[in-house]
Parts: sequence; C-alpha cells; structure tokens
Amino acid sequence: MSLTEVIDGTQAAVTADPKNAAVSFTTTNDLVSGTATQVAVAVRDHSFGVDEPAVLGGGDTSANPVEYALAALGSCQVITYQFWAARLGIRLDDVSVKVDGDLDLHGFFGFDETTRAGFGDVRVSVTLTGPESPERYEELKRHVDQHCPVLDLFRNPTPTKTELTA
Amino acid sequence: MSLTEVIDGTQAAVTADPKNAAVSFTTTNDLVSGTATQVAVAVRDHSFGVDEPAVLGGGDTSANPVEYALAALGSCQVITYQFWAARLGIRLDDVSVKVDGDLDLHGFFGFDETTRAGFGDVRVSVTLTGPESPERYEELKRHVDQHCPVLDLFRNPTPTKTELTA
Repeated sequence: MSLTEVIDGTQAAVTADPKNAAVSFTTTNDLVSGTATQVAVAVRDHSFGVDEPAVLGGGDTSANPVEYALAALGSCQVITYQFWAARLGIRLDDVSVKVDGDLDLHGFFGFDETTRAGFGDVRVSVTLTGPESPERYEELKRHVDQHCPVLDLFRNPTPTKTELTA
Repeated sequence: MSLTEVIDGTQAAVTADPKNAAVSFTTTNDLVSGTATQVAVAVRDHSFGVDEPAVLGGGDTSANPVEYALAALGSCQVITYQFWAARLGIRLDDVSVKVDGDLDLHGFFGFDETTRAGFGDVRVSVTLTGPESPERYEELKRHVDQHCPVLDLFRNPTPTKTELTA
C-alpha cells in the first residue's frame, strides 16, 4: 500500500467511526543487570536492548534511554515528512534528520535540585532532497512540525502517571 | 565500576568543575524507503531500524517512533531505579516497567486540527522485587520520578528547535 492509500483508507475508516483513530502502544522494559535493560514491544514481535556507556556505569551494549528518545524524535520526523509529502503532493527524494540534545547531569544525580533531569535544549536539523522549491519544502515543514507525534511529546506536557507495585 | 562508584566519581568531577555535568547526545536518522528509517547513535557504535506496522504504511521491520519513545521512558525508569536504589542504600533485586500510551490518529493525519498529534495519556506500571518495606520502595519511587530524565521529557515542555535545509 502506498502512503496515499494508507491516508485515504484511514480517513474512510475514521469517518465511518471516529473511534477507529484511537490506538494504543505498549512496551515492557525488564532489568537484565546493572543498567542493561531489555525492551519488548507488545503485539508486534520487536525487541531490543538499552544500556549506558561505561562513564554512566553501563556495559555500553546498546544506546541509552535519552538516545532512544532522540531517535524516536528523529525517526518520527523522517516518517512524518514522508506522510505529509504524500498528503500534500510534494515530491521528496530523501530525508535525513540529525538530532542533538543537551543534558545537565546535576539533574539526574540530584546534585542540584533546581536543574531539570531531562534535556535543557534539543536541536533538530532536517535535510530534504528533491526537485521542489525551497518555499514548497518550508510549507511541508510547517505541516510536519504541526503533526509529528514525537515533536509534540517533546514540546508539550503529556499526562503521564506512574504506579508502583512492590 | 559499581553504580555507587559512578555516583561518587561523577560527584567529585562535577564538584571540581560544574561543566563536567554538561553532556550531549546525537542521533542521525536516515530514510531507507517508505517508512523504514535507519538510526545511528553518534560517537558510540550503536544503530537500529525504525518502521511502521502495515496498517500505518510500513513494512513492520522494527518498532515505530512512538514505541521507541515509550521504550525510552520505560528503560529510563528501570535505570533510574537502579541508580537511586544505590544512592539511597535501598536493596532492589529486580525492576520491571510496563508503559502504555494512547494516541488519537486524528492528530497525526490532520483529520482534526484540535486533536494533539502526540500521546493523550501515558501510564507507567513499575514492579519492584526485593526485601525492603513498601514504604521504602515508595520513598525510592518519589526520588526516581523526580530525577528520571525521560519522565521529565514526557511531563514537561522541552525547548526543541527544528531547522530545514532544502
């Protein structure tokens, strides 16, 4: 199925019943040892490791959580560019996205309680290749930045509850 | 190095010069084709794929961006539990974290511009195993939720700039 067919098919399904637009995603995250963690994605058969580099006490066997967060953002931008280029009829030959995030470890370690634990600043650099005018690609960027799920997650608060069983 | 040694070593380095706490992370995210995207983590030698399931126009070769975002949160919780248990001297034998996120596709597809593109609701269920009292583990949870970088990313706005080269 082309992305245009997916968009049209989803629109038809959602028009028939708006509840068809409600989707849920689940991951389970289990300690292996130290900082090594194994992730399984529910329903679909995907799994991968997470770990810290040696300076943060890990075995460096995989990317760490904040790198996965930046990868979620960068890959979401790539895919949202693909969808919205199809939706708007804008030809796009290639997309590459670099994401940089700065973090102050005073927050994570609690050395300074006024420093936030998460990223203080994130920069996304998008490179598009194709035959359209720069103005057309700027128009595409506006639509992408308005509809990219992980960019929304970064820029805006998300209601997130934590619950403990011990 | 034990996590306690990492905490003490980082504290010494950061006390000597607060700038030692400033760290940056980078990923590059390149389109393969369709929705398939390849991620490389800068400096460290880690890479992985990202893709959508068939209903979202993908080849289902890997987890998708929002699943990686939930995995970033779940694994960050696991690792922050490990660090803060070491820091507070709380014995913890095992940690398992399930993360569920709900998303309304009206947002991503732009079928309704009043629906946010990202998660409307996220639930984190943490299961701890160990010999300490429930009160001790509740105390641990309070410290973890205050210092977990990806939980901070979910709950609070992060300054995120996007820049286009086309």
